[in-house]
Amino acid sequence: MEYLVNRRDIDFILKEQIHYEKLFELPEFKEFTTEMFDMVLDQSFKFAQQEIAPLNASGDKEGCLFDGKTVKAPKGYKEAYQHFAENGFIGMDVPATYGGQGLPLTVAMPASEFFSGASVSFMMYPGLTRGAAHLIETCGSEALKNIYVQKMYSGVWAGTMCLTEPQAGSAVGDLKTTAVPQPDGSYKIKGGKMFISSGDHDLTENIIHLVLARIQGDPENSTKGISLFVVPKLKVKKDGSVGESNDVKTVNIEHKMGIKGQATCTLSFGDNDQCVGHLVGEPRSGMKQMFQMMNEARLLCGMQGLSISGTAFEHALQYAKERVQGQGKTIVAFPDVRRMLMLQKAYVEGIRSLLYHTGYYIDMGKGHPNPETKAYYQGFADLLTPMCKAYGSDMGFKVTELAMQTYGGYGYISEYPIEQYMRDVKISSIYEGTNGIQALDLLGRKLPQNGGQVVQQFYAMLDEFVTKNQNEPALKVELGEFKKALDLIAQVAMSFMEMTGKGDFNYPMLSATPFLNMFSNVVVAYYLLDQAVIAHVKLAKLLEEKVDDPSQHKGFIKGNDEAAYLDGKIKTARFFVHQVLPTVRATVKSINSGDRSALEIIL
Amino acid sequence: MEYLVNRRDIDFILKEQIHYEKLFELPEFKEFTTEMFDMVLDQSFKFAQQEIAPLNASGDKEGCLFDGKTVKAPKGYKEAYQHFAENGFIGMDVPATYGGQGLPLTVAMPASEFFSGASVSFMMYPGLTRGAAHLIETCGSEALKNIYVQKMYSGVWAGTMCLTEPQAGSAVGDLKTTAVPQPDGSYKIKGGKMFISSGDHDLTENIIHLVLARIQGDPENSTKGISLFVVPKLKVKKDGSVGESNDVKTVNIEHKMGIKGQATCTLSFGDNDQCVGHLVGEPRSGMKQMFQMMNEARLLCGMQGLSISGTAFEHALQYAKERVQGQGKTIVAFPDVRRMLMLQKAYVEGIRSLLYHTGYYIDMGKGHPNPETKAYYQGFADLLTPMCKAYGSDMGFKVTELAMQTYGGYGYISEYPIEQYMRDVKISSIYEGTNGIQALDLLGRKLPQNGGQVVQQFYAMLDEFVTKNQNEPALKVELGEFKKALDLIAQVAMSFMEMTGKGDFNYPMLSATPFLNMFSNVVVAYYLLDQAVIAHVKLAKLLEEKVDDPSQHKGFIKGNDEAAYLDGKIKTARFFVHQVLPTVRATVKSINSGDRSALEIIL
Repeated sequence: MEYLVNRRDIDFILKEQIHYEKLFELPEFKEFTTEMFDMVLDQSFKFAQQEIAPLNASGDKEGCLFDGKTVKAPKGYKEAYQHFAENGFIGMDVPATYGGQGLPLTVAMPASEFFSGASVSFMMYPGLTRGAAHLIETCGSEALKNIYVQKMYSGVWAGTMCLTEPQAGSAVGDLKTTAVPQPDGSYKIKGGKMFISSGDHDLTENIIHLVLARIQGDPENSTKGISLFVVPKLKVKKDGSVGESNDVKTVNIEHKMGIKGQATCTLSFGDNDQCVGHLVGEPRSGMKQMFQMMNEARLLCGMQGLSISGTAFEHALQYAKERVQGQGKTIVAFPDVRRMLMLQKAYVEGIRSLLYHTGYYIDMGKGHPNPETKAYYQGFADLLTPMCKAYGSDMGFKVTELAMQTYGGYGYISEYPIEQYMRDVKISSIYEGTNGIQALDLLGRKLPQNGGQVVQQFYAMLDEFVTKNQNEPALKVELGEFKKALDLIAQVAMSFMEMTGKGDFNYPMLSATPFLNMFSNVVVAYYLLDQAVIAHVKLAKLLEEKVDDPSQHKGFIKGNDEAAYLDGKIKTARFFVHQVLPTVRATVKSINSGDRSALEIIL
Repeated sequence: MEYLVNRRDIDFILKEQIHYEKLFELPEFKEFTTEMFDMVLDQSFKFAQQEIAPLNASGDKEGCLFDGKTVKAPKGYKEAYQHFAENGFIGMDVPATYGGQGLPLTVAMPASEFFSGASVSFMMYPGLTRGAAHLIETCGSEALKNIYVQKMYSGVWAGTMCLTEPQAGSAVGDLKTTAVPQPDGSYKIKGGKMFISSGDHDLTENIIHLVLARIQGDPENSTKGISLFVVPKLKVKKDGSVGESNDVKTVNIEHKMGIKGQATCTLSFGDNDQCVGHLVGEPRSGMKQMFQMMNEARLLCGMQGLSISGTAFEHALQYAKERVQGQGKTIVAFPDVRRMLMLQKAYVEGIRSLLYHTGYYIDMGKGHPNPETKAYYQGFADLLTPMCKAYGSDMGFKVTELAMQTYGGYGYISEYPIEQYMRDVKISSIYEGTNGIQALDLLGRKLPQNGGQVVQQFYAMLDEFVTKNQNEPALKVELGEFKKALDLIAQVAMSFMEMTGKGDFNYPMLSATPFLNMFSNVVVAYYLLDQAVIAHVKLAKLLEEKVDDPSQHKGFIKGNDEAAYLDGKIKTARFFVHQVLPTVRATVKSINSGDRSALEIIL
């Protein structure tokens, strides 16, 4: 299927909303130019469209083949993986030390949107490799780094993260995989892992598993006793060449609703007591280390939601403009179809802005020379990550539902791309911590971060935005509505703190998911309104320059792509504020009801 | 997969809420007894569980086979279809004249829930046969009835409805299939139809298509020029035996996201000018006739939503009670899981009550001896049908989403039943008139029905319910909230009428889907609250009888299934009123905003 994306919208966010040239203030990015950034995006888009997108439907149809011993990825994946690596796309946003391109995440985000949007099943192979390599790069010893990292970024070896076990899903602390120290400093690993994405395949010479396990004698039934190990599929010799099997067995692959081109494996480590692992960093710090990769992966889940829904929306829009129904009208003229398209547009563009901004906050949080500014942005990134993950994936799924409804019967059949998009995107709500876990993370960890300072700073930024723009007549009503919703978030957050202060944890936990959704709606409304304010100024200027007679404005906007795009930004923000934001009040009413039926009922 | 359903809840609705014995007042049902009804339900449930459910996963995996000429349904379907027919299940709720059982729809509804919940792909074969046969029975000539109807109810022949053409989906009036009158009174049919459910298969000796076509010379591009024809796949000889091919060609079958055991066909009629059709009733009344079958089919779409989500919820509940995560707790203890389960429970039980009541209203509307009462109930059935269809299917899909989230990773893989349920149920939002079409039907046809009298009568029934029960302390708050929401529906309906009165049709049409959803939420809240009122009285009585010390009530409820069920009814209604009903206000705020961005934007 063709990969469709709205490049204009991506450029708008990077150049007119974020102003990505601000990244040049950071020492690590001072050598870059906007031309270089744009070139990377052009290359990435071209690659996504030409080399990845053609594998999406075929990979879904073919699936992965497990012969009882090893796994074969779908046809074409191997070649595409190698080209992907040759282009330097795996380590796009990691330092150059081991072969990365050292680009900011702000630029890697749209590239990631192109790649995932073209085929999320494919993109998970390099995505996990990058995450695993980067984790070794960040936490591993020099020896581990030298052996593994470059080979992974360059596409010779791939990577995975191995957390889940049959009895330990959301409760990682229940894991049973063991690590027994050996005289040479290595560990013998034993245990079973399941739902391992990219767990086995034929894309690379070797696969490097990052495995959570418990060192003999460390605390049980708790995440505190967990350590992290590098466990290659094939042993690596001293000279870096690949040796014999490391006693890692592929037990099975899952048959899934979607992402069928992605090999989701059950792995068994050390069936013959010959599985060697190498400790990463300190013992018992595995959970903390894995969270680096987890946080990146959570952002990527949000990105999967965005990228798939982004292309689903573009397809639905194209279809609606072409499909004739009833006296020669195209269905884009029908109000109910317009409502569905607008919902898709608003979610996609709002979530895109949220994700790209989060990428930007991460860049600033990592690299800003001023420690206060650094902490300020890192706090925003932490706060927004669960929203990117949960809201991005849930609304991504919602958008595919709306896209399917726009297509009617054609949306349900495999000849058209939407049904695969729907099946593929669903997993993003589940893995890397279910969206329920994300909501608890937001409530239990992110709100109280630094004594609530992070969320207060974020509130202050949004509040200041309202103050600055509230007299703009074109958006006055919408900014007023936004301000009310923003204040409701603050109120609810306070009420949760009071409840937990009184020892009532269950009620806030019951409201965690609705709270994450309402908070995300406010955040998305903010980014859309910010875009509308920018677009309004630009459109006014454009009209002033090009049209003398104000009565001709409407006609000009209709005939001019750029004017229509800017006008669309204003209307999208208005639509979202009036059609979606009112649900915030409904959620507040629900939370304020104090209704505990769900806690008290006998189920 | 095992078919799970909450039989207690079904009995509650039939016996304690609807009081199905009231049907004995209707002449056509006066011979029945409640024992007979219950026996039918027991039989249906047993058949669903033992003979249909085992075909669901295998049918999904195997799919239908098209060899370029004919279609084979999955293994086991043929035998099950014949047993189904032998049990008299096809014509369960049609008169005995041609072999029906003459049961009320009120009783056929739960049977239909069992059958569809066990396998919707399978159930569509007898479902379409029943619809087609009943349409011939209602509108056809004596000759047609004598030839076709009994053979269809008895499982010798199957049936379909053929509306959609490539260029005519929602806009049926655009169809191009033609019918040319022949000297013998028959017609030559020529044209292509697509998305024909059960369009071809090997379950029966013959397939009887009901085809919409335009008689030569009748008005084009309008539903007014459409007539309805009986077009058998194989010609039927005078003695009723099957003859040569009737020039009906199976061109293709669709590859779909779900309902893979169901053969969705593209058919070509009269490629060799040898396709004979027989007019049903009067010329140019095809649309009106087909609407009988369409309305039945719309109710069945809602039933598909209910039945699949009903069993998905039971599976999720069972899973949550068994799945251990984190220090030996089962996940049903976690507040976020309870929230998800309660949403599933409330939607399933609310929609079940809505659908069964609609079945009851149809029975009363068809058979009540008093013309006024008859019209009263028929009006309710008409009003509620689009809600049953659209809300039933959309919320059915939503429930499968929540069920999958409850399962976590296991929900996404084919070893567990949820992912198939999700794929299967999605189609119900699309076919038989997309849910967008249902919303327009509610707004444009059903609200103004009899000058608004029907909706006013329905409002009066709900309002009276509040008045009657508002002093019940256990539900006082909830009834108050309900009343406010109910009045908002009336307000919005009025405002739409004012707008259309002023010639503004687009804005109401833009709000049609949100309006259908908010109206349905109020209707479902009504049925749940009605159940809660009943349960409250029964529970009080039970406690009075069984427990002397009021401080022991909680403990008793926990240990007594019936008490827990009744207590659950009260809590489910409270939950729905506090967690879902507030969205009604949000929708009203959206509608009242007057925001026309979606209509004005250049897409």
